[in-house]
Amino acid sequence: MSQTEKLKPAARVTGQRQDVWSIVNEAALASPIQPVVNMGQGFFGYNPPPFILDAARSALERVECNQYSPTKGRPRLKKAIADAYSPFWGRKLDPETEVTITTGANEGMLSAFMAFIEQGDEVVIFEPFFDQYISNIEMPGGKIVYVPMHPPASGATKTSSAGEWTIDFNELEKAITPRTKMMVINTPHNPVGKVYSKEELQRIGDICLKNDIIILSDEVYDRLYYVPFTRIATLSPDIENITITVGSAGKNFYATGWRVGWLMGPSHLIKYVSAAHTRICYSSVSPLQEACAIGFEQADANGFWDQAVTDMKRKMDRFNAVWPELDLPFSDPEGGYFVLVNMSKVQIPEDYNFPPHVASRPRDFKLCWFMIQEFGLAAIPPTEFYTDANAHIVEDYMRFAVCKPDDVLETAKERLRGLRKYLKE
Amino acid sequence: MSQTEKLKPAARVTGQRQDVWSIVNEAALASPIQPVVNMGQGFFGYNPPPFILDAARSALERVECNQYSPTKGRPRLKKAIADAYSPFWGRKLDPETEVTITTGANEGMLSAFMAFIEQGDEVVIFEPFFDQYISNIEMPGGKIVYVPMHPPASGATKTSSAGEWTIDFNELEKAITPRTKMMVINTPHNPVGKVYSKEELQRIGDICLKNDIIILSDEVYDRLYYVPFTRIATLSPDIENITITVGSAGKNFYATGWRVGWLMGPSHLIKYVSAAHTRICYSSVSPLQEACAIGFEQADANGFWDQAVTDMKRKMDRFNAVWPELDLPFSDPEGGYFVLVNMSKVQIPEDYNFPPHVASRPRDFKLCWFMIQEFGLAAIPPTEFYTDANAHIVEDYMRFAVCKPDDVLETAKERLRGLRKYLKE
Ligand SMILES: Cc1ncc(COP(=O)(O)O)c(C=O)c1O
Ligand SMILES: Cc1ncc(COP(=O)(O)O)c(C=O)c1O
Repeated sequence: MSQTEKLKPAARVTGQRQDVWSIVNEAALASPIQPVVNMGQGFFGYNPPPFILDAARSALERVECNQYSPTKGRPRLKKAIADAYSPFWGRKLDPETEVTITTGANEGMLSAFMAFIEQGDEVVIFEPFFDQYISNIEMPGGKIVYVPMHPPASGATKTSSAGEWTIDFNELEKAITPRTKMMVINTPHNPVGKVYSKEELQRIGDICLKNDIIILSDEVYDRLYYVPFTRIATLSPDIENITITVGSAGKNFYATGWRVGWLMGPSHLIKYVSAAHTRICYSSVSPLQEACAIGFEQADANGFWDQAVTDMKRKMDRFNAVWPELDLPFSDPEGGYFVLVNMSKVQIPEDYNFPPHVASRPRDFKLCWFMIQEFGLAAIPPTEFYTDANAHIVEDYMRFAVCKPDDVLETAKERLRGLRKYLKE
Repeated sequence: MSQTEKLKPAARVTGQRQDVWSIVNEAALASPIQPVVNMGQGFFGYNPPPFILDAARSALERVECNQYSPTKGRPRLKKAIADAYSPFWGRKLDPETEVTITTGANEGMLSAFMAFIEQGDEVVIFEPFFDQYISNIEMPGGKIVYVPMHPPASGATKTSSAGEWTIDFNELEKAITPRTKMMVINTPHNPVGKVYSKEELQRIGDICLKNDIIILSDEVYDRLYYVPFTRIATLSPDIENITITVGSAGKNFYATGWRVGWLMGPSHLIKYVSAAHTRICYSSVSPLQEACAIGFEQADANGFWDQAVTDMKRKMDRFNAVWPELDLPFSDPEGGYFVLVNMSKVQIPEDYNFPPHVASRPRDFKLCWFMIQEFGLAAIPPTEFYTDANAHIVEDYMRFAVCKPDDVLETAKERLRGLRKYLKE
């Protein structure tokens, strides 16, 4: 073996094409309009509320809050989460056995896949998907089976509710094989903004029950919904018995950089997730776990959850007011902080010059590059969250994140008005 | 397939025996002497220095410090680390390509194994080992090959330097096969307290060069050494080219709960480690990365690194003063904050009652249980860090962590004096 041969990396970290985040960053650096307004990535453009920041500052004073936490999480945070979610579950959750803390929802989901997936086990996920699912499932050797969500037929011409994106249950049933071990759902959904209805969740739950499939319910946007929100684990004790629910303090408390997440579920599932988490990260960040515990304890008294919904819905409506001006249809979100806008009416000049790695991607990547260069506005092309075979479904859409200060939203709208001269009649 | 069959966990998270930390915790809860003094786990019994805590508090004010950091780490921290280590490397390190930030050293090492280990690749590690290496290597399918460190022949009767623990280089050469992909070294060493000499590191480096083996050098205690300390990556450009060096802000800044670590090395290795890290944790905790950046920037001006050595060495000597009183020999540490003490002279009463899961383990586990019950003092049995075949080498030793306040060290010493009546003449 030659030296280079022996020093070579494992297949799991090689050979991916350039990801959307680096393309967007590169485009932003190359843009003549500076600074570029970033409506792309889903980080908040403002701070956590003062009571959470106070909690973090006070945790930093305490010796034990700066040292290793138990691998399953700080007892105070597990209890605060169990207390906060018990009302939704309609019974007391056990903080010791039914909750485990992870390094963000992301590492939590990796822990769940590591806990249950053996080489060749299959995991069903829906398109569009949160991109990290892919590598997280592939790392333990899982095989991904994709089922597309379908936009409303009139998506290119008419604004309608994000709830009208649908699953074809025949396609879903066909995707299931004897090797199907897990199914991942995401509600409120990134990037679609759909909140799955109780009926849809019941059908998904029944299919998983019938086939003994573990449900991983990614509910990181669970505090941001504008229509009634159902948690699949609460539909029945049988469904609860096969469901792991994912949460994120980063999303709940406007602190995506804190890396505090959790998984909830029956002890017979959670105990293996904890074991995997211990082997991955050992334990999660202590002072910010403590701050999140205090956050959960005080959120209701501060009226925080209601305020969060009101504030985000107001931002959503404020930003989306620009689309009727431009006569561009969008999927009106039922939850979360992303909105998908249909841009089939936007005509990019025929001779527009794209770098090769953008030219080779679907139309939404070109729209993305074009908007960054011409208007200094970054959004995310959603075909990144589809397989090549199904990418055509969303190649006319763009994803915008509205979790930004109001003045940023207004600047973004003003820049978007520049699209007018590129609109087809 | 029955339901239970299909919901069962993956092999990687099942079937391990009870780990040492839960045995110690359980013993502590069962002890008649409360509270138990914990000299076991290596967390600090005091806070990071004020300039670091100030830095953390100020980071919490800043919007961008509470949101996602770049997956490879905050630019300011990468630069601060590159600047801090460039003098040791004797050249300017490139913060963009030669440093990557991870969620503690632990997830950093997992990222390194995930980056390079394919199913069946072999990794050489030395016993005693840091316990997380095992699951971290096994997760990507690596096979571990163990090489024991040997205590000085007179270890049971005479105090001597921890440097006298040695590697048998014939054993090491025999452990290497065409499948050996990586070798892990740890200096300053946990739990031995040895700082590898330049000559030993040169021999290890030469063996790895000859066999094209990637060196993972775990140097998390790199700021705590009481004899000259050599970093293997700095021995020659050829060795540097195959070496990944591991660091931990948790260890450096007395904040094990902050979960900030990093890996340094040539870009052709680091880029794959970063890719693995992105797939595992996405990004690491933002405000505490910023605090650590400021920590590195200001450490020299605050005389912090020198103070850290002086303080820990003083604690080490203060605590170890109890062993001559008891005529118990120990391995005098050259670095780090752990000390191994030889307790072959301690006679546990013949009829002493151990729970079955302790009774079935080597003598050090019994010593551990006995000391917690009789004296309210917890230490760690080091056979946990050996394979069963080699456990006998350290079954008379106990590991103590001295990173505790002075009054705790004094209480621990007072409790240890109770051993006197159990000592063989
Ligand atoms: C659907 C979904 N799941 C999980 C995550 C990750 O959450 P965390 O930041 O807590 O790891 C995100 C973040 O964007 C997300 O959109
Ligand atoms: C030898 C060794 N390596 C790595 C680690 C982990 O460091 P971190 O807390 O930064 O993950 C430890 C912690 O005890 C250790 O002793």
